Amino acid sequence: MRELIKRVLQGDEERSAVEIAGWVRTRRDAKGFSFLEINDGSCLSSLQVIVDDGVPGSEQVKDMLTGSSVRVTGDLVTSPAKGQKWEMRATEVKLVGAAPEDYPLQKKRHSLEFLREISHLRPRTNLHGAIFRTRSRLAQAVHRFFAERDFVYVQTPIITASDCEGAGEMFRVTTLDAEKGGKAEEDFFEKAAYLTVSGQLEGETFACALSNIYTFGPTFRAENSHTSRHAAEFWMIEPEVAFCDLEGDMDLAEEFVREMVREVVKEMTEDFALFSKFVDKGLEPRLRQVLEKPFKRITYTEAVEILEKSGRQFDYPVSWGDNLQSEHERYLTEEHFKCPVTVYNYPRSIKPFYMRQNEDDKTVAAMDLLVPGIGELVGGSQREERYDRLKKAMDDHGLSEGYDWYLDLRKYGSVPHAGFGLGFERLLMFVTGVANIRDVIPFARTPGNCEF
Amino acid sequence: MRELIKRVLQGDEERSAVEIAGWVRTRRDAKGFSFLEINDGSCLSSLQVIVDDGVPGSEQVKDMLTGSSVRVTGDLVTSPAKGQKWEMRATEVKLVGAAPEDYPLQKKRHSLEFLREISHLRPRTNLHGAIFRTRSRLAQAVHRFFAERDFVYVQTPIITASDCEGAGEMFRVTTLDAEKGGKAEEDFFEKAAYLTVSGQLEGETFACALSNIYTFGPTFRAENSHTSRHAAEFWMIEPEVAFCDLEGDMDLAEEFVREMVREVVKEMTEDFALFSKFVDKGLEPRLRQVLEKPFKRITYTEAVEILEKSGRQFDYPVSWGDNLQSEHERYLTEEHFKCPVTVYNYPRSIKPFYMRQNEDDKTVAAMDLLVPGIGELVGGSQREERYDRLKKAMDDHGLSEGYDWYLDLRKYGSVPHAGFGLGFERLLMFVTGVANIRDVIPFARTPGNCEF
Repeated sequence: MRELIKRVLQGDEERSAVEIAGWVRTRRDAKGFSFLEINDGSCLSSLQVIVDDGVPGSEQVKDMLTGSSVRVTGDLVTSPAKGQKWEMRATEVKLVGAAPEDYPLQKKRHSLEFLREISHLRPRTNLHGAIFRTRSRLAQAVHRFFAERDFVYVQTPIITASDCEGAGEMFRVTTLDAEKGGKAEEDFFEKAAYLTVSGQLEGETFACALSNIYTFGPTFRAENSHTSRHAAEFWMIEPEVAFCDLEGDMDLAEEFVREMVREVVKEMTEDFALFSKFVDKGLEPRLRQVLEKPFKRITYTEAVEILEKSGRQFDYPVSWGDNLQSEHERYLTEEHFKCPVTVYNYPRSIKPFYMRQNEDDKTVAAMDLLVPGIGELVGGSQREERYDRLKKAMDDHGLSEGYDWYLDLRKYGSVPHAGFGLGFERLLMFVTGVANIRDVIPFARTPGNCEF
Repeated sequence: MRELIKRVLQGDEERSAVEIAGWVRTRRDAKGFSFLEINDGSCLSSLQVIVDDGVPGSEQVKDMLTGSSVRVTGDLVTSPAKGQKWEMRATEVKLVGAAPEDYPLQKKRHSLEFLREISHLRPRTNLHGAIFRTRSRLAQAVHRFFAERDFVYVQTPIITASDCEGAGEMFRVTTLDAEKGGKAEEDFFEKAAYLTVSGQLEGETFACALSNIYTFGPTFRAENSHTSRHAAEFWMIEPEVAFCDLEGDMDLAEEFVREMVREVVKEMTEDFALFSKFVDKGLEPRLRQVLEKPFKRITYTEAVEILEKSGRQFDYPVSWGDNLQSEHERYLTEEHFKCPVTVYNYPRSIKPFYMRQNEDDKTVAAMDLLVPGIGELVGGSQREERYDRLKKAMDDHGLSEGYDWYLDLRKYGSVPHAGFGLGFERLLMFVTGVANIRDVIPFARTPGNCEF
């Protein structure tokens, strides 16, 4: 019975008849024996296997080139080599699938651009193996975080006829002939349908029934962006809590971010060490700060004052009423406070219709959580629960039709409620130091790019 | 600080100054006090609250109609009433959001059809609250099951240019004007793109790097089906395991199904009791059987023999080489074996190109797991890992272009591997007894139906 190398390496005593399987990373031949480095992707480390000449199957060793797959049975023994606790002395080896000499992932450094072109093979590299193990572990930690707090996971629809923010270009979903076109009423859903940009509005309907809910699913933007931070398809986490105000919302967001960072720093130590050493030297101190320092909270108005007084020349001028730009957000979190900062109470004019209006009549109960190296990681708000105010805001935004169900939540036992959205890939970039979103998505979708 | 009713009811001693919030299910007025049944969706049970006249806020009690939202502080005391351990004596009540007399969810039985039309309110009912809590719990259990077994969660792409099976109608994803149409090369991805029908092929690339992986995400079918078992958008679970053959695959599928059933029967006792009592009287014995009896395994050829010898008149005749129909599958699992049955080694001609060809040259290493009440719950196979055979099968299916990356897996260190797919909604229908897929999806998408 095959064991994963991760488990084998965690052992605490020598034992025999251990069976592993994986892919050869490198082979070195010596007089009378060969070394094989075998990786099975279950962890970053490979297992070093010593194959003595004459062991059953050893005649195949010369064909065990980099990339080939093998099965090995042997004895797990303490390794005399530095940097590894265990090695295996093979009692039997078997070549399962050969790899030719031109296997693209020979042992050398490859550019991230080249690796994107072979996205089907790059999880076999150290870096992408680590990234995608971390992605998985973090996704599982998201579910655990919410499960432990009695949140109900809701799978909100991917195909939708409504547009959460009135902002953001949407993809059309259709069974009409895309070349010739046709009438919406003849389409599959008998009207125009799109890929969702957010599950928030549907999530609110569930929070107003089950109290604490969250979504975690794919969302889409048909924006023609070619930056390192935008993808057409990405995953989003959106909790929504009934009987919760902005303060409770900020508490939850901060606790969530800290827990996710803890998961990576404390539980993914081997992969995290790789990111810290090879991807971003500033990563470890930055994340340690997140774990150790309390987060800072300031109002948008205070943020503007700090930026105005900073004496810094920003590319975009700072002015009350304008959106904070990435450079402003990063100044606040990286230079001024040197820790994560939650900015709240934003001008109403720059925020979506559903946010709760504050008594000053100028701001809404919105919040953004900013982190060093990234800027905005979380955006959330308390939602407008007062029917009349929401109805007016929707009318002002031209959203009068098709949202009766959303208004119903304010008609039937309305409750204060709040939530936030967090882009999962942005979180991954924050905890791994990886700078391009295309490198943390298994098969990234960007304008002109839908391979695999 | 508000506590969830679920937690309050789990308490083991009387205590004071407990704060809850939720929605009024019913109110009964008596001389000098009122009873409120309050539900917050955290569990099926409501908390009974006694509000004495004169308690702060009690003047609002007359407006606390069914559906209105309230906050209550009070003392948790042992209840003299039958069927409940705890009740609350309010020390303060507050009406948060009123509900009018025409609130659609008055205390009476509503048809499932009516509730579908108010999908934004139906999670407030006992039945749908239970369904969606179970859906959440089961989804979280899926992740836990795989995490415990060192499987890496891979989020395979939703938008794709390839078609996993060459079967199944697909939705087109486009930014072209759907009314007027346009050329594929002018579309967002510069070619035709679709919503995925399966993440399997992309999942295989990750299994051939990280060993054990699974996907859990939305998949789509643009089929004009109006049955109670088809939806255009549903979630699928697809594990894929390197160095695994068909037998290992069947072991994993059976273990998975049993674990999911155990989760519902043993951990969701309150909601499960509701399903057993009000949805399907046969549910509990059926699921107990799954937990207690070993699953049966037979070849497709044996299945055909059993069906031929059964003496039953089926609507569709049974003949070696044809697909098993739902009636055949249900006969095998419900009547002949009376337990889940895994059927394997299907005729090659009725299965997709990627399944591993058996030595008999007639069958492939495919398997379907059949369960009582549903029929096929899981479909899987060992994948063809031999380059030449796979290439020929793909050529025979006209899949020569655009799949080089899939063939690469057989060129570079190919390994035997196997996996399966399981429709999450079908699993939910199996464990809840709910007969229509529209009732286990938060907002179902079917032909002509894309509301909310």
